[in-house]
Amino acid sequence: MSDLFREIEHCVTAPEGFRAGVTASGIKSDAAIKDLGILASDVPCVAAGTFTTSSTRAAPVIVCQERLRGGKAQAVIVNSGNANCATGDLGLLNAYRMSEFAAKKLGLENELVLCSSTGIIGRQLPIEKIQAGVSAIELSRDGGNAFSEAILTTDTRPKRIALEFELDGRVVRLGGATKGAGMIYPNMATMLCYLTTDAAIELEWMKTEVRAAVADSFNMMAMDGDMSTNDTCILFANGLAGNTPINAQHPQAGTFREALRRVTQYLAREMARDGEGATKLMTVYVRGARDKADAVKAARAITVSPLWQCALAGGDPNWGRIVAALGASGCALDQGSYDIFIGDVQVTQKGMAAAYAQEDAKAAMAGSEVTIAVDLHLGEGQATAWGCDLTHGYIDENTLYTR
Amino acid sequence: MSDLFREIEHCVTAPEGFRAGVTASGIKSDAAIKDLGILASDVPCVAAGTFTTSSTRAAPVIVCQERLRGGKAQAVIVNSGNANCATGDLGLLNAYRMSEFAAKKLGLENELVLCSSTGIIGRQLPIEKIQAGVSAIELSRDGGNAFSEAILTTDTRPKRIALEFELDGRVVRLGGATKGAGMIYPNMATMLCYLTTDAAIELEWMKTEVRAAVADSFNMMAMDGDMSTNDTCILFANGLAGNTPINAQHPQAGTFREALRRVTQYLAREMARDGEGATKLMTVYVRGARDKADAVKAARAITVSPLWQCALAGGDPNWGRIVAALGASGCALDQGSYDIFIGDVQVTQKGMAAAYAQEDAKAAMAGSEVTIAVDLHLGEGQATAWGCDLTHGYIDENTLYTR
Repeated sequence: MSDLFREIEHCVTAPEGFRAGVTASGIKSDAAIKDLGILASDVPCVAAGTFTTSSTRAAPVIVCQERLRGGKAQAVIVNSGNANCATGDLGLLNAYRMSEFAAKKLGLENELVLCSSTGIIGRQLPIEKIQAGVSAIELSRDGGNAFSEAILTTDTRPKRIALEFELDGRVVRLGGATKGAGMIYPNMATMLCYLTTDAAIELEWMKTEVRAAVADSFNMMAMDGDMSTNDTCILFANGLAGNTPINAQHPQAGTFREALRRVTQYLAREMARDGEGATKLMTVYVRGARDKADAVKAARAITVSPLWQCALAGGDPNWGRIVAALGASGCALDQGSYDIFIGDVQVTQKGMAAAYAQEDAKAAMAGSEVTIAVDLHLGEGQATAWGCDLTHGYIDENTLYTR
Repeated sequence: MSDLFREIEHCVTAPEGFRAGVTASGIKSDAAIKDLGILASDVPCVAAGTFTTSSTRAAPVIVCQERLRGGKAQAVIVNSGNANCATGDLGLLNAYRMSEFAAKKLGLENELVLCSSTGIIGRQLPIEKIQAGVSAIELSRDGGNAFSEAILTTDTRPKRIALEFELDGRVVRLGGATKGAGMIYPNMATMLCYLTTDAAIELEWMKTEVRAAVADSFNMMAMDGDMSTNDTCILFANGLAGNTPINAQHPQAGTFREALRRVTQYLAREMARDGEGATKLMTVYVRGARDKADAVKAARAITVSPLWQCALAGGDPNWGRIVAALGASGCALDQGSYDIFIGDVQVTQKGMAAAYAQEDAKAAMAGSEVTIAVDLHLGEGQATAWGCDLTHGYIDENTLYTR
């Protein structure tokens, strides 16, 4: 991080006026695990989100989409262990009820409280446990880290960050926490992301920026934002920093945009690194594509190729798998002109094997972070995508998920 | 098979006038393995094929597409162990050369000889070994089974069949052999399929029927025909049965169509069953879709969901994975009306958990063949897709492929 952006503690409660709290409500079979959390602002926020476009989207997603139409929210209640998806009218009622429990506790209007769920699909929420759990929750200014832990499912570690920077001469903060570890497109486990800031932001600009930031981060991480039933990413901005509300004309709009990119891309990368069973993070850079859309197609195709993910797991520089993924990606490609690099080693030159030493290529794949670069030599399109390898661990995680 | 269609021996050399032969040419590291084969007809054939649409398609695919423009062919030479893909101008020259070796041996015009390759991407063909191998090949009327074995890569067994039936009062035969075991969409290993018949068929009708048969078989098997670099499916019809050439007006066109469906669907199912590391074959039936295209989307989405494939491996009736795959498939869906069955057990009713016993659902997933049925209750669209489970075996197969 450069000097402009300082990393600080407490992730989503780092910004002024945000509090969070958690409890072990007993939704998960291990009764000691924290599985319910509330994140709230002291004052109403301008809020915007992006959600799954699945036609089997979960009840809490429906509630969030409805309540965010006005661009205002003040809190969110989140449970893990149960997705409240494929649960019909009762599921929708339960989503409204869990947000009402939180609203009552916080003394807020129902309409200002959002909700999220993640976990097993097809079972009704144990709504009494959630009701009892809400009473037990105590919110605090340093509750952000506990909140980032209560939203996890198969994740092995929390993903969280907060940055502090200046805007209009005021100190502002942006925090974030995510969960999500099922990594193989097109059926990842649910991704949830909560972003908080004390910056004042105008709603329309915020909507555009959240969409753009998600496109360049979470949608580029071998999980497609539109593919799970519960995917959610929400930014809450409470304005307590006292800056002039940011819009496209604000002279420092770019500073906030940069902070938002850093936070979302950091979280996306950490999610890829913590993919189920993952032992290696891969970063794929594509340049020289006909346009950005083509670069995105090519980069994502490589991160989601199970055959290449297996080669990555084995440290095997089998770049033919990359060639096959590129060919199938739908991006414009000239068979006689593309180059592929694994780390610093050029393995493909003008669409054919380059002169390289196999030991060098293996060495470039040996570490816990592997970079792939592709130059299509057709135009100016660029994109970066993140993914992970495919190992026995992924399979073990998913063969007996419901037992 | 009903009485109309009798299963007979020798697969691709079962039809009158076809011969095949193989040799161990040394392309594969184990010099004892048969890795080169020729399949030929005694007389020129009407021929049509479908091929990968990958933008990194291999050299032999380019040669086949060019030579099949005229709708005539008489032989094909196939090697395993090397895909002749990402090999540039030299690769294309080598593809022409290998078909010339076969043409010279058989005394045919070059233009009548096709070629295929399957194996590792990015290495030049050992063309001298192929030249020597061609001289060593002896073709015979019972060489079909050996041919079906020489085209294999990671397959654990050959996939082959031949049917005999009557048409215009004549006995006609249709044989087929396929290879392909990398099963996870969108980056399977190469699929090759050769179909032979002694029926006389008009070219235009044949083109249409091959496309339609491939759409309902190989393109429905958790491998997409347009996604690998070398995918090839060719039908050779030499007309030696002496029937009136089949076209859309022929009164028994439907009989040949039925035989073609049986052969291609049998081969597709056997390929799914032999997927890398597979322990279970899954058959997915979708009905009640808005239209056929939607049914195809829904059925394929289920077979290619890695999370559901893992659940299948573990015998875990985690139907939430099916819900997620359906939601992401892009098919029209009413959240309150779809039903899901595993075997005979209804696990989802009107989009929610049905009343079923977990032991029954587990029992329905315990065998080596598992059927999933989905009724979307929206229209008349139907489709069937085949796939397999995702196991440690798949990963083991693909972590160290090039070593």
